[in-house]
Amino acid sequence: MRVTIIGVGLLGGSFGMALRKSGAADHVAGVDLDRATLDRAIDRGAVDEGFLDLAEGVERADLVVLATPVRAILEMLPGLASILGAETVLLDLGSTKEAIVSTVASQAGIKRYVGGHPMAGTEHAGIEHADARLLQDATFALVPPPEVDEGAVDLLTDLVRGIGACPVVIPAERHDRIVSITSHLPYLLSVVLALAAENMAREEDRLGAFAASGFRDTTRLAASNVRVMADICLTNGRPLLRGIEDARRLLDDLAALIEEGRESELVRTLTTAKESRASLLEERRTD
Amino acid sequence: MRVTIIGVGLLGGSFGMALRKSGAADHVAGVDLDRATLDRAIDRGAVDEGFLDLAEGVERADLVVLATPVRAILEMLPGLASILGAETVLLDLGSTKEAIVSTVASQAGIKRYVGGHPMAGTEHAGIEHADARLLQDATFALVPPPEVDEGAVDLLTDLVRGIGACPVVIPAERHDRIVSITSHLPYLLSVVLALAAENMAREEDRLGAFAASGFRDTTRLAASNVRVMADICLTNGRPLLRGIEDARRLLDDLAALIEEGRESELVRTLTTAKESRASLLEERRTD
Repeated sequence: MRVTIIGVGLLGGSFGMALRKSGAADHVAGVDLDRATLDRAIDRGAVDEGFLDLAEGVERADLVVLATPVRAILEMLPGLASILGAETVLLDLGSTKEAIVSTVASQAGIKRYVGGHPMAGTEHAGIEHADARLLQDATFALVPPPEVDEGAVDLLTDLVRGIGACPVVIPAERHDRIVSITSHLPYLLSVVLALAAENMAREEDRLGAFAASGFRDTTRLAASNVRVMADICLTNGRPLLRGIEDARRLLDDLAALIEEGRESELVRTLTTAKESRASLLEERRTD
Repeated sequence: MRVTIIGVGLLGGSFGMALRKSGAADHVAGVDLDRATLDRAIDRGAVDEGFLDLAEGVERADLVVLATPVRAILEMLPGLASILGAETVLLDLGSTKEAIVSTVASQAGIKRYVGGHPMAGTEHAGIEHADARLLQDATFALVPPPEVDEGAVDLLTDLVRGIGACPVVIPAERHDRIVSITSHLPYLLSVVLALAAENMAREEDRLGAFAASGFRDTTRLAASNVRVMADICLTNGRPLLRGIEDARRLLDDLAALIEEGRESELVRTLTTAKESRASLLEERRTD
């Protein structure tokens, strides 16, 4: 199978490495805006060859993989629709799915599309940080459009298994709702914490000395690629706004317990949080 | 110098190990409620000998270190006041300082007190997880009461340097305000996220599969010892409630930017968060 990956950054590069290492693809081409990035992707073993021209890059591909930020994917779809072969399967790795699935539906030229989202990432961006192991054992959502191409879903399920990730077939709306809580709300809370610290740091010059591992880990996601995350927030607004509302309500409840010194309820709530987290992470591990 | 540590859990045990390893103390005694914990603390090299009886344990100490949760410290102070030698220096390692400093002030029997707070910890509790390296390079707040005992502060400054940590002398009110943002708000946001996930998991059975490293790290603090954290919340209520208020306001602002699609402002805010975090952690590293 010949695969073309468009956007060879952290995720596209890691996917290419995993494909090549596992032998799941015979040939991996990369398309990027920048020659130096393509050369680096070849050096790092992420792709076999690189193209600056989209049409040239996808010409002989059995599978085309879009690995750019969500809105760059949305902008690319109409152009792709006119050059994609009728049998070519299209997969995207964008972090939100409804916007992409519905845009694909409006493009008659795209016949065999399945959305994808590997639950793997780091706060670092770019081909330098790409690593085949990033996808190892990761949940890899496969999100078929309303008109499902079963052949494409089967092909991708095998491919995802082939690189050592765990395929989960799930509809776009359900995917977006889940990741609003497991990925996007964590990011925003991390941002809120960094901003609250910034506010205090303006009048408290010793703050930095007190930022230990708890602060570092809880704000780690705030170091994510801003463009990628802004795209995510703006294309997953509805579920994310519900998540924010939920977080606000939970914060209010905690504030009331603290303000009124309701110790046993506070202990109960903190215990629920601890146990829920443990059981969610346990499910992940044993899935 | 002879040191007695009361409470040989994660922090007391780690402090004992660091004291013994560095040679900063000639003899380290441990006091705990539980014989098995004391034996384990001896086995693990945290203390030279163990006492179940408080008076016996502190009898010949030059320095007594309280390493229990905050409210256990508050409850212990009156009893300690009647058995502490006039020259014995008292240090506590509680995570909030105003409540302890003001309770000490009401105990005439306590002559040479300095508050302490090493900015080190993990979500794991107990002597099994104690490690001398926990305190290595950590900021170690020293919080003198209003009537400062300069000799005690100097002694502890040397001791903290001796175990490889970084002493920062700071008043209680300022300490509590800073850690409300660097430690306690991170904990509560982590709890909020775990609870929001729990709420969704009730109706969404695939949630666990989507809890990847971002969720794991952002909720890590929710796995902390509940009793320790409830104590902290209830003894640092005022600054913490201000921090919660700040977080709510920031969440509202982000929600408005997302809801109204104000992209450039959103990007600016996310960029500020990313840069603030980096510079705060940088300060920490170069302090």
